[in-house]
Order: sequence, then structure tokens, then C-alpha cells
Amino acid sequence: MEDTRIQVEEVMELLKERKFSELRSRLSEIQPIDVAQILGEVPEEKLLILYRILPKEDAADVFTEMEPEEQETLIRAFNEREIQEILEEMYIDDAVDLVEEMPAVVVNKILRHASPETRKEINELLKYPEDSAGSVMTTEYMSLKSDMTVADAFERIRRNADEKEDIYTCYVVSPQRMLEGTVSLKDLFLTSKDTLIGDLMETNIISVNTLDDQEEVAKQMAKYNLTTIPVVDKEKRLVGIVTVDDAIDVIQEENTEDIEMMAAITPTDKPYIDTGLFETYKKRIPWLLLLMISATFTGAIITKYESALGAYVILTAYIPMLMDTGGNAGSQASVSIIRGLSLDEIQFSDVFRVQGKELMVAVLCGFTLALANFFKLIFIDRVGTIIALVVCMTLLFTVVVAKFVGCSLPILAKRIGFDPAVMASPFITTIVDAISLIIYFQLASHILHI
Amino acid sequence: MEDTRIQVEEVMELLKERKFSELRSRLSEIQPIDVAQILGEVPEEKLLILYRILPKEDAADVFTEMEPEEQETLIRAFNEREIQEILEEMYIDDAVDLVEEMPAVVVNKILRHASPETRKEINELLKYPEDSAGSVMTTEYMSLKSDMTVADAFERIRRNADEKEDIYTCYVVSPQRMLEGTVSLKDLFLTSKDTLIGDLMETNIISVNTLDDQEEVAKQMAKYNLTTIPVVDKEKRLVGIVTVDDAIDVIQEENTEDIEMMAAITPTDKPYIDTGLFETYKKRIPWLLLLMISATFTGAIITKYESALGAYVILTAYIPMLMDTGGNAGSQASVSIIRGLSLDEIQFSDVFRVQGKELMVAVLCGFTLALANFFKLIFIDRVGTIIALVVCMTLLFTVVVAKFVGCSLPILAKRIGFDPAVMASPFITTIVDAISLIIYFQLASHILHI
Repeated sequence: MEDTRIQVEEVMELLKERKFSELRSRLSEIQPIDVAQILGEVPEEKLLILYRILPKEDAADVFTEMEPEEQETLIRAFNEREIQEILEEMYIDDAVDLVEEMPAVVVNKILRHASPETRKEINELLKYPEDSAGSVMTTEYMSLKSDMTVADAFERIRRNADEKEDIYTCYVVSPQRMLEGTVSLKDLFLTSKDTLIGDLMETNIISVNTLDDQEEVAKQMAKYNLTTIPVVDKEKRLVGIVTVDDAIDVIQEENTEDIEMMAAITPTDKPYIDTGLFETYKKRIPWLLLLMISATFTGAIITKYESALGAYVILTAYIPMLMDTGGNAGSQASVSIIRGLSLDEIQFSDVFRVQGKELMVAVLCGFTLALANFFKLIFIDRVGTIIALVVCMTLLFTVVVAKFVGCSLPILAKRIGFDPAVMASPFITTIVDAISLIIYFQLASHILHI
Repeated sequence: MEDTRIQVEEVMELLKERKFSELRSRLSEIQPIDVAQILGEVPEEKLLILYRILPKEDAADVFTEMEPEEQETLIRAFNEREIQEILEEMYIDDAVDLVEEMPAVVVNKILRHASPETRKEINELLKYPEDSAGSVMTTEYMSLKSDMTVADAFERIRRNADEKEDIYTCYVVSPQRMLEGTVSLKDLFLTSKDTLIGDLMETNIISVNTLDDQEEVAKQMAKYNLTTIPVVDKEKRLVGIVTVDDAIDVIQEENTEDIEMMAAITPTDKPYIDTGLFETYKKRIPWLLLLMISATFTGAIITKYESALGAYVILTAYIPMLMDTGGNAGSQASVSIIRGLSLDEIQFSDVFRVQGKELMVAVLCGFTLALANFFKLIFIDRVGTIIALVVCMTLLFTVVVAKFVGCSLPILAKRIGFDPAVMASPFITTIVDAISLIIYFQLASHILHI
């Protein structure tokens, strides 16, 4: 970011001095995504000039990496030829992303100038629901036929490589476009030229369906170490591929979503820094309100035991410690389980194993904390032994309940079809707070005879 | 997982009936990682028999995907020839991972039977610090020379493809092994056979250093959409490459680490389900103890205002709601910022922009919550207007302080070289609890004249 600022100044300086050819050669030495970041920082009125200075072969790559705001500015300024050029150069999945991000009037301008073929492809891909495999795939894969020889395949790859997003895994399709097998380019190199593709191809294929969630696509690619995965329709016809760079984006998006949900924030696709004030407010306030209302139950419990508290005000002093420790113990358990579920390391059938383990860990943690606290209560706070016992027993029970609730709720949530990430710290904290206060006051009224 | 269980039963059945060739053909239809999962579930004494039934060409892939426990069992049982075969078939980075996981006696057996060349390569790679680029790279990349023609390059690729982990990006090195450029196999296909590699190669190269953190490697690959990235040493000599499948594993590991740290758990590499009872305890108890001790400050604040509370016990009833809401508001801010920092979307220079935005969001959220709460206090709890004012003003201030502290601490932590993820909910909650109680009691004593 600091670097970008310096580069932006240099670019603006060269532009001011009208040193266009030096500017062009400087920009050609920088990676497209970095050029896109620089262009994101220059004044809007300079954007088109700078874009037109870019070396032709880099322009489409730079354009693809830009933020939607700058893309929109450029398209509004582009002439017909420039729009056609950019659409021909872009991969079809990137063109679809572009169309999805632009306002209707800009989309019209794009589609009006697109070649009929490109327009048809874009419209086909726009049909798929958001976040489905179909919506992230590209149709520019390399296909082969099973009756080709390796030599034929090489010839076909050589002729078509330019317009394909990936040529390193080739897909063998039947005349009805059924996916029959895959052949890696590496295998083609290692086989004699007259081998038939049908004899060489791998028929044990991992594929996804157009309507599968993009998260499923990324998981399959990660599990099987794939750099591309085929996407098939209901009739098992090959319709596209997803490439690994898109899968990485999906993985990061899904992780952000999980983390946001765990912190009681409604997830969006936008980076924090690009999210507006009111939008940020809207992502947070419903959860804060909901959790505030549920926290009032905790208040009701305290009110119920008001007379006990009047007699032993000292008990109030340990409420925050008990609540915080319960919340922390519960969120350790719930977050571990949520992550395990999200990485498919934990299944519903593991529920008893998980609960057993958490209970034992809870007893260990609970005893350690209660012991440490007992010494502190007796020797530092100098409260009576009875009060110390009430506090420490509550602590032990709270930790056990917290870890049990914390590990169980996410698994149950997943089982009944909810996102387990909702069951993270804030919800667990609210539940555990109430339970720990009830334990506290029950113990206190029995032991202290209030 | 459910599927695996059924498959394990089928495999054990076929084994019992000694239908070995049917077993072999069934296993050959399953992906290596799935076979590895099945073998992870069979009784240990059947492991070697099943492994020996596997088709030769799959055995090494299956072995690579196995858990360390099963790998150890197998290596202990392997004869010399089997160890040699597996080492020749495995990619060198996987062999290094294996050696790192095994106990000394097993490592000795492996290295004793390895070819001198493989042994030397393994020992070279073992030198690099854990989690460095050097420790995740492979040395099996495809190298070219700049004075070769495209035809020469194809010939060289054809001859060497078998032993290379990736042939789709070729690295052009000088006689001194300096990295001069990269050529994609796609470019080779699109260029005439007599073009010189030196004229074709891309010299604007993204690379990492052997000692760079693996997280940096994964970030660069994700940013520039690379499927392999070159790793160079201090003298800029090419020593290896990292492939995208390893980068995805690193991304998931780092995400798990961030999430665990946010929930106050010491991160480890092991999946939850494989982590032992005592190990889980050790990952959690230090944080629980630390946070419990810091929560006692909150208790000290309450004790200090004991007399005020004695007079207005009703004030106690709203402590949990104030603490929870403050904690939730703070963790929303801190988690958003931690994620933004971890994805490099937020830089230190954004600190004032972030603080400004959080302050405004906090005022919006605070007012909404205070208003909702005010109505509840007046019309449902039927407390006096003065008490309601004290509670609601505290709520507003708490949310503002919580969001401000929540967004600032992670950025400051990163600035001074700590992991921002430590500054997530539990720490923020503890700090915000104390501040909100002080605000509460200060307001109460001024307004209620206690």
C-alpha cells in the first residue's frame, strides 16, 4: 500500500511531463494487479488516458483486476472498438463477473457491443444462481475426443490454446457432450504419439454439478489437489470448468463469512474498507439488538435473587468473572467445533465422541480454574471459606456446562440445516451467562441459607 | 465419512473372502485420498496386506495421503525394496514431510534405504525452518536455458516430465542457477518452434525467498493467481517451487490459526478430532486463567462501588446486559479489523479512517440500542426515568468505547509486531467490561447522588 502511493506519484509525475513512452514501459514492468491498484488511486479524469497508455497485451488483464468503480468509469468512456477488444481478451467468467457488478445502463452498453457469440455465452452463464458452481465456472476449457490420437490432441491444443483459460487438463467428451474422461497435458507428453486418447484417459473423475454450492467446489478441489474441476449439468454433460484461482477466492470468502458470523456480523462479499457506514451498521445492529434482548433474561435472574444479593453484596463482585470465564470456555469449545465442521473434519456421527472429550477437558479446566480462584479468594480477597466455596463450585459447573453447550450446539445446528457459525461465542455467552447465574444463586441460597 | 464406513466394510468383506483381484480393481476406481481414508479405518494388522494389494501406480499416491500413524506402521513393516520404491515415486517435498513426522528410528530406516541422491535432497530441504517457503517447496521443477529454442524446450520437457511435480510453468535459469525468467507451457504451444526461450520468457517474475513465511507465499500466489511460485535463496538462485495445492493447505492452516487465536486457543497444526485430551487442555487453560485473572479487576470495580449497589440493588440487574452488549459490539469491530489485516485489505496508514468509521457506526448502534432499551426499561421493567437514563447513557458510551477499542487494538498490535488475532473478543471483552462498569457507576453516583 505504501509502495502503491509512491508508484502513483511517479505515474502522475510522468503523465504531467507527458513522458508517455517512459510511462508505458514502466507500467509494463509491473504485474497487472499492481497496475490496477495504481489506477485505483489516480484521479478519475486521468484514468482513461492512463488506461490507453497501457501496452495492448496487458490492458485486458489490468482491466479484469480493477475495482468495479473504475471499471464502470472506463466502460462509460470507452468507444465501441475498445469494448469489443476488452470483451474478446477477457476470459468469459471474468466478463460475466463484470456484467454482474455493473448497473443496467452499463450492462446494456457492454452487451450491445459484444459479438453475438460472446453475448450468448454471457447470457448462458448469467442464468446460474449466485454462489453456484455454474456462476463461477468458465466455458473456455480444452475438450478432446476419445478417438483422437495423442498427435491429434497436440495439434488441437496448439490450435486452440490461445482462447482457453486452462489447457493443462483436457476433458474428453462424447458427441453428446457427456464427460468421458480427463487427460493431463503431462500424460500427453509421456505417451507415444499414436496412442488413442480413449486408451490414455483417466475415467475416474471428480466433478461437480452446476447447482452445487461454490464452497463444495472449493472443498473438492482442495481435497483432491485439482487445478481445474469439471462442472456438469443434470444430464451429466460437461458445461464448464472452475479454475483453482477462483477456488482460492471462494475459500477466502467462505472463511471471512464464517469469521463474521462467529462475531455476530451479517456476512457480505465486500472488503471491510469498501463497506459504507450505513451498510456496516446494518450488518451489525440486528445481532446486537437480538443479543441485548436475550441478555435481559440474565438481568431477570438477578432481579429474582435481589434479596439474596442485598444480604451478600459481595456475591455481585464475582458475577463478571463467572460470566466472562463461562463465555470464554464455551467459545473455545464452540469455535473448535465450528472450524472442524467447516473443514469436514467432524461429522454428526462424532457427536458423542466430541461431547465426551469436551466434558473431560471441561472438568480439567474447571478444576484448575476453581483451585486458582480458591487461593485468590482466601488469601487475597480474604472472603470467608463458604463464599469461596460457592464461587469456586459455580466456576467448575459453569465451565463444564459452557463447554458442553459450546460443543453441542454447532453440531446440532448443522444437523438441522443451520450454519454452525451462528452458534459461536455471542450466542453461547448469552446462554451460558444465564445458566451460570442460576447455578450461582442456587448454590448460594442453599449453602448460605438465604 | 458415512460413505467411508460402508466402503471399509466392503473392503474387509472382500479381504475375508480372499477376493484379491476384485479388491484391487475396486480400490483402483477410488481416488487415492479416499483409499487412504479407508485404510485409516481398517485394523492395523490388515494394513500391510491391503497396501500390497493396491495397484503399483496408485500405491505411492495413497501412501502420501495417509495419516502419519498409518505411514509409520507401514514403514516399520516395509522391506528395503518397498521403501526404495515409495521414495522414488513420492515427490521430494512429500518425502520431506514424511521424514519430519516420523520418530528417529523410522527416519533412520528411511534414510538408510534411500538412494544417495534422494537422501541428499531430503537433508537439504530439512535445513529450512518450520513454516518457511523452503520447508514447503519442492525441488522438482522444470528448468530451461535461455539459449534453447522452443523445439529444444519441448524435447527437454518430454524427457523430464515424469519426475517433475509441475511442468506447466518452466523456469529459465542461468549457468549460475540465477532465475532469469518464466515460460508457460501454453506460451510454448503458441510460439514457432525456432523462437529462442530467452526472447519468449517473461522476465517480470514474482518470487519468494527461502526464509519467507509460508503465509507470505500463499498470499503472493493468491494475489497473482499463480499455480506455482519460484523460491530463490539469498543470492537469488532458484532452489525450488511451491505448488498451489500446498498453498491452499497453508491458507486453511493460517485461517484455522487466526480463528483459534480469536477464540483464545493456542493454535496447533492438528485437526480437533486428532488432538488428545491433555493437549486440548493445554491449548486452552493458559488463556482461561489469564482472562479469569484480568476479569477480577472488574470484580474489584464492583467491590469499590459496593455501597452504591447496596442502595440501588436494581443497578446490578443491568450489569450482564451492559457487559455482554459491550463485548459483542467490541468483538464485531475487532474481528472485522483482524480479518481485514489478515487479508491485507487494511494497512496501518488506514488507522484514522478505520477509527472514524467505527466511531460513527458505534454512535448509530449505540443510539439504536439505547433507545430500544429505554422503552423496555420504562414500559416493561417500569424502573424510574432516572435509572433508565443511567442505564441507557452507559449503554451508548459502552458501545462507543467498545468499538473504538475493538478497532484500534488489532491495528496497534500488528504495528508493534504482535499477531492482531490475539486482540479478539476475549481480550476486548475484558477491557470493555471494566470500562463500562466504571462509566456505569460514575454516571450512577453523579446522577443518583449516591
